[in-house]
Amino acid sequence: MSKPININRRGLMLVLSSPSGAGKTTLARQLLADDEAIAMSVSVTTRAARPGEVEGEDYIFVDRTEYDRRVDANEFLEHAQVFDHFYGTPTAAVYGSLEDGMDVLFDIDWQGTQQLQENAPNDLVKVFILPPSNTELERRLRSRAQDSEDVVKSRMSQAATEISHWPEYDYIIINEDVADSLQQLKAILAAERLRRARQTGLSEFVTGNF
Amino acid sequence: MSKPININRRGLMLVLSSPSGAGKTTLARQLLADDEAIAMSVSVTTRAARPGEVEGEDYIFVDRTEYDRRVDANEFLEHAQVFDHFYGTPTAAVYGSLEDGMDVLFDIDWQGTQQLQENAPNDLVKVFILPPSNTELERRLRSRAQDSEDVVKSRMSQAATEISHWPEYDYIIINEDVADSLQQLKAILAAERLRRARQTGLSEFVTGNF
Repeated sequence: MSKPININRRGLMLVLSSPSGAGKTTLARQLLADDEAIAMSVSVTTRAARPGEVEGEDYIFVDRTEYDRRVDANEFLEHAQVFDHFYGTPTAAVYGSLEDGMDVLFDIDWQGTQQLQENAPNDLVKVFILPPSNTELERRLRSRAQDSEDVVKSRMSQAATEISHWPEYDYIIINEDVADSLQQLKAILAAERLRRARQTGLSEFVTGNF
Repeated sequence: MSKPININRRGLMLVLSSPSGAGKTTLARQLLADDEAIAMSVSVTTRAARPGEVEGEDYIFVDRTEYDRRVDANEFLEHAQVFDHFYGTPTAAVYGSLEDGMDVLFDIDWQGTQQLQENAPNDLVKVFILPPSNTELERRLRSRAQDSEDVVKSRMSQAATEISHWPEYDYIIINEDVADSLQQLKAILAAERLRRARQTGLSEFVTGNF
């Protein structure tokens, strides 16, 4: 056997969006565990580190002044306020990974996705995870235990808003069974890596070999 | 376990193109054997049936008058002359399969692909199979035995022309190892089936379930 051919490839930005309770976090964690060529995007945040969180791995922790400076300097691919805290995706870190041929995974909502679409449309692969039904989503949200009726209701209403944005995505996975959904997600990633436009070394390869 | 959710899906047209000797025919045959939801496109041809060829399965055999009538009636998605014979892809049969949710596989060259691109751009997924190198391609063509030096040279020249069209394709597979390439082809097909635009029943599913 000859050794496999490696064509230079620009990484891609894989966005996973879904309502809370659709199983997105589990899928993301399993994908990251199984695939060494994709890494989670590390966000900048103004919130305090929680016990066990590692600076630069879980988040980049900054104060509000530094965060505002970065917003003004246009250093974020997307940023948002969630309740009292601010979050942003640092452009330089993501582009550095893409240029190294690494893929970057984003666990963000429809608003963050729209900002990425505006700022980096060519690198983006957008996947929306749907729960099998409203009833099943409610069951999953209730099974998270302690939540009060009001919290469940508020989450269901947020879910409805998030779900209304599914037509803005490239691929839809209906997460009935996690193993099946993980296979589907891996197929999407494998296929997108074979796209001509991402194989940046192909021209040199063809010119040199034929 | 609940039963899996089946969303109505419009089939897609999967085009495989490659120079002769790149392994396309083997890949196509294995894909068809492993996947019941894709079938080979059956062409209309003016050439005589060879022993063992089945009408309607291998080809639809017609005389030149009938072929010309179909060309004039615009009944082909693409058609071409190859040496002394004429070949065409019947639009009605292909569209019937797509509407039934079946995928259709095409083993055609860059010229046929350009015609499909013009006539059915939304249904098309274009994959180009590259051999690992010119040297390896020549070795494969020579190993087909009986061919004279002139035939090999003519094939290499045809291959160069075909290869020059790779940038017109969506995906590129470098066929170093058939098992790897088959996996890549299956990932492309799986991913394209999850594309939002192909899942024609999604709107009804979401409306009915959320």
